[in-house]
Amino acid sequence: MGIAIMTSGGDCAGMNPGIKRFVEYSIEKGLKPYLICDGLEGLIDNRIQPATHADVAGIITKGGSVLRSSRSARFFEPEYRQQAYDNLKAHGIDMLVVLGGDGSFRALDVFYREFGIAFCGIPATIDNDIFGTDYCLGVDTALNVIRQATDQIRDTASSSRRAFVIETMGRDCGYLALVSALTSGAEICLIPELPYDLDSLKKRFQAEIADGRTYMIAIVSEGVDFAPQLTRWLEEEVGMEARLTVLGHTQRGGSPTVLDRLRAFEFVTIAIDALVTGSNDGVVFYKNCQMATRSISEVVSGRSEISPVYLEEGRKLTR
Amino acid sequence: MGIAIMTSGGDCAGMNPGIKRFVEYSIEKGLKPYLICDGLEGLIDNRIQPATHADVAGIITKGGSVLRSSRSARFFEPEYRQQAYDNLKAHGIDMLVVLGGDGSFRALDVFYREFGIAFCGIPATIDNDIFGTDYCLGVDTALNVIRQATDQIRDTASSSRRAFVIETMGRDCGYLALVSALTSGAEICLIPELPYDLDSLKKRFQAEIADGRTYMIAIVSEGVDFAPQLTRWLEEEVGMEARLTVLGHTQRGGSPTVLDRLRAFEFVTIAIDALVTGSNDGVVFYKNCQMATRSISEVVSGRSEISPVYLEEGRKLTR
Amino acid sequence: MGIAIMTSGGDCAGMNPGIKRFVEYSIEKGLKPYLICDGLEGLIDNRIQPATHADVAGIITKGGSVLRSSRSARFFEPEYRQQAYDNLKAHGIDMLVVLGGDGSFRALDVFYREFGIAFCGIPATIDNDIFGTDYCLGVDTALNVIRQATDQIRDTASSSRRAFVIETMGRDCGYLALVSALTSGAEICLIPELPYDLDSLKKRFQAEIADGRTYMIAIVSEGVDFAPQLTRWLEEEVGMEARLTVLGHTQRGGSPTVLDRLRAFEFVTIAIDALVTGSNDGVVFYKNCQMATRSISEVVSGRSEISPVYLEEGRKLTR
Amino acid sequence: MGIAIMTSGGDCAGMNPGIKRFVEYSIEKGLKPYLICDGLEGLIDNRIQPATHADVAGIITKGGSVLRSSRSARFFEPEYRQQAYDNLKAHGIDMLVVLGGDGSFRALDVFYREFGIAFCGIPATIDNDIFGTDYCLGVDTALNVIRQATDQIRDTASSSRRAFVIETMGRDCGYLALVSALTSGAEICLIPELPYDLDSLKKRFQAEIADGRTYMIAIVSEGVDFAPQLTRWLEEEVGMEARLTVLGHTQRGGSPTVLDRLRAFEFVTIAIDALVTGSNDGVVFYKNCQMATRSISEVVSGRSEISPVYLEEGRKLTR
Repeated sequence: MGIAIMTSGGDCAGMNPGIKRFVEYSIEKGLKPYLICDGLEGLIDNRIQPATHADVAGIITKGGSVLRSSRSARFFEPEYRQQAYDNLKAHGIDMLVVLGGDGSFRALDVFYREFGIAFCGIPATIDNDIFGTDYCLGVDTALNVIRQATDQIRDTASSSRRAFVIETMGRDCGYLALVSALTSGAEICLIPELPYDLDSLKKRFQAEIADGRTYMIAIVSEGVDFAPQLTRWLEEEVGMEARLTVLGHTQRGGSPTVLDRLRAFEFVTIAIDALVTGSNDGVVFYKNCQMATRSISEVVSGRSEISPVYLEEGRKLTR
Repeated sequence: MGIAIMTSGGDCAGMNPGIKRFVEYSIEKGLKPYLICDGLEGLIDNRIQPATHADVAGIITKGGSVLRSSRSARFFEPEYRQQAYDNLKAHGIDMLVVLGGDGSFRALDVFYREFGIAFCGIPATIDNDIFGTDYCLGVDTALNVIRQATDQIRDTASSSRRAFVIETMGRDCGYLALVSALTSGAEICLIPELPYDLDSLKKRFQAEIADGRTYMIAIVSEGVDFAPQLTRWLEEEVGMEARLTVLGHTQRGGSPTVLDRLRAFEFVTIAIDALVTGSNDGVVFYKNCQMATRSISEVVSGRSEISPVYLEEGRKLTR
Repeated sequence: MGIAIMTSGGDCAGMNPGIKRFVEYSIEKGLKPYLICDGLEGLIDNRIQPATHADVAGIITKGGSVLRSSRSARFFEPEYRQQAYDNLKAHGIDMLVVLGGDGSFRALDVFYREFGIAFCGIPATIDNDIFGTDYCLGVDTALNVIRQATDQIRDTASSSRRAFVIETMGRDCGYLALVSALTSGAEICLIPELPYDLDSLKKRFQAEIADGRTYMIAIVSEGVDFAPQLTRWLEEEVGMEARLTVLGHTQRGGSPTVLDRLRAFEFVTIAIDALVTGSNDGVVFYKNCQMATRSISEVVSGRSEISPVYLEEGRKLTR
Repeated sequence: MGIAIMTSGGDCAGMNPGIKRFVEYSIEKGLKPYLICDGLEGLIDNRIQPATHADVAGIITKGGSVLRSSRSARFFEPEYRQQAYDNLKAHGIDMLVVLGGDGSFRALDVFYREFGIAFCGIPATIDNDIFGTDYCLGVDTALNVIRQATDQIRDTASSSRRAFVIETMGRDCGYLALVSALTSGAEICLIPELPYDLDSLKKRFQAEIADGRTYMIAIVSEGVDFAPQLTRWLEEEVGMEARLTVLGHTQRGGSPTVLDRLRAFEFVTIAIDALVTGSNDGVVFYKNCQMATRSISEVVSGRSEISPVYLEEGRKLTR
């Protein structure tokens, strides 16, 4: 029984530990594992090869994905999906494990309904915005990359009496920014989920500066799209010299933390177990500390939300 | 209403973020926060002082505990517990938050029954061996310290065709060693919870070496007390040059990871909420992804256990 | 004999180890050490205090400067320099150690000629652009911050088949960018010191991409002011999806590396020795592996240059 | 013209950047590069293969050596050296670059005198004990591994009021220990090069403890062979609880720092230039900030020494 793995959409840390676990556990289960390179594009172009232990030797410590990833426009077209199916059939593959985001899951759900190739999706995106799961692969590593950068910036902020605005990734989800703010002692945090009050912030900080505050850290989620403006506002309205740092793609990389390696291990184990026992349309969720599979319709049925406890605390950083 | 915090027993990362959250949240709740230095010894010797925001500025990034910790023999004696009580009374403190291990919780339980000072314990030990909670503060940071060291050792192991034995902490609990082994691709893992079969391991590795294996990583928990012997066995029986690295106290230190900062935040918030609402004998547990308080009798009623899923996987590394 | 230290201009790692060495060595030499906060601004506003061992306990591991830094417009005006002098006289300080850039050295040279306060400057700037010295404090730590970020970006670049442009600091000096490119295997490096040929680069990379190259790293010095344009050029002309990361102020921070701590120790030792033996207008240089003092006129007499060996190698990354 | 590279003796960071530079620069110079695996043992057993760019893609960030290393007993015997020579002749290789220690240089010097195969040695050992050169590859990375571990231990030392003894590598050279002590603020440092006075240390620390000192860091070089005894002495004589951490082989690993990558680049460039211009018995030294070749007889003519400036400062940590 052939089973294949691909990493799709945006890349993140944890994918490589997942690929390693995939190969080892598949072999343990008496399956024939295959690797698909370059995500859906590679599925279309038959970049599919049998996998051995040697293929995954040493990759557990590496960030990103050795299989690479892609966003595929061609997969939207039936002829290319037919091609993808023909490729899988030729290799004798009838089960797919996919590490990626909900976009990839939807695509494979369509594929499943057309061709019957069972798949199990593993939520993997540093944005942590897939509905139904408390955790997406890559988030812990991204948070710790942000933490290191924020600690470095704090050194220079405190030495130069400046305000620093740090823009994090997240698409439309403020999780990375909010958790980073709560765990770094930032003074301001702007995320899409919460309204903010600049006048209130201005009053508060002018008072604190008069009272001795010498520097400040503000963390802004990219989804708010306000980091440069906030930087200018800090200089012009609040009266503190300010600098902006856009953290960028360092947030996608880095050797996976232990948590991301562990979750990758668990996600992939559950995914393969589910496929082997006949599950054919599912996504693995991590909810209430349990790994379980859910149907794709659940994933697309709602918007992910940040815990109210964090949001409650985050409000204080918006006014 | 006076509320005080102490860190007790072995120190670990996450204690400082917890202390910071304690001061800020206490003030938010209209309480008067106090800091007790040097754990139970400091409680006896009145090293108690009122806390301000300035006391906790910048500590969120620091490993260890700025309040320091202690193991107290004197606290076992009633006269010193009386002294401790008198100190608290003099300061008007009637609530205690304690970050530490079950030893500290038991001591404060006795203290509560004698003097009625309510306390809430927060499990904090890198050994992750407190019954009832899935997570103890400090574990994630310790795991990532081990990960970095293991990655460094892997460089030299692969370059010198050697087997490396790495001894981790854990007291009698193999959690640190097992999770480290599973997330680093180690070939052998010995922990107190699992029997091991040296003959089986010898057969397996002699075959793998004949087949091309050039190096090996073995992770041994201190509770097994076998690391030096395993190192000798690798050289004499398996036939691969071997070296031992005892990781030691680096595992206790390091800037707290984001997860440890987040859990510290959550643990302390729940602890203060519980005390304020009249709970007077409890420990905060993190179970099934929820923070909740439980009575001390639950803590001492059983032995912590590692998840069967991990143990199952761990067995393969023992034979 | 009073001797004071200040950190001036841009902050950098290594300043804190320098401040610690200053206090300890001054005391050893029988001098009375003073700390000046906030650079020249603090000198004007009398933020001067006697220093003790306690002031510098634990700072050796910290990035930035606990004394903070400033760029002073007021110091250009004679009345404020008079005020500064009066402050020093009041404290009995007649020797100054200054960690900063050539701007600070020039200011203190003027001050010396007016008031006779001997100073010794220590080159400290991550840009590494002070003429006469091979090494400026802060450079090694900045290079390793860039290295970590580049390694993280390489993970995602290789996983997503993209070209990544990384903009580093440096003002008008390409040292940070060039050394980073040479030690990270970057494919392109644009610095102010070297002309570049986009057509030649385009030909070369289009051939390499046809031949199998899947991703690319380009490092651009801020002094070239071309990073966004290069990013667009990569997408539009070379035909590879491209992203830009501006590393920003993380390059100023971070716990000082061993080299920066060692150089700080050496720089400060030489500076104090020079002042004690009557030198009254000098800068400490690190040249040919020796620490030696030179007069300020030497510093301002030329432009720093990057080693021809590095430039030679760098040319290959411009065409 | 065939030129080959091997890494020999103990492994260290910087070897991989050196191997990468070797392949690229050899090709640039119109030479045919070869890789020898497993040091002298591989030379004997013909583990020699032609090198391509693909062989060294991505290795610049990796610790250790992808060619691995060995200590060869067989190379002492003429028949095996003959075998080694025959292997090189068969491949058309008449130039060797060797990254290793003086033991490897001596062996290849004998080999050169017997068979005329020119070699250029590059000093590579974390012990930094090769006479004639100020710098050996791998030292900067090792120092920063020690720094991180020492910072982690400082967290727990200060939290638990303990003295910590940290044993570093170094064979008979105290460089690693001494520089680590000077740049981490350690209170005690014992190295082979300096006598120490326990009575004096005891008096001093008993006074400091009475005066408020709560913890202590001692760094001991393995060459002194006294770390466990010092630990006991601290508890029994000085009266402070003490723990020992032997840093072990983590000191050999880790991604090479920028300095090690840069020196590797420079060392290899000079080595290949020297061989190409007809030098046939030499070692590359880094002295007074210059790379230059010297004859092997110079290397073996003396013992390396630590700078008197560092030793002077180190004395204060021995009594």
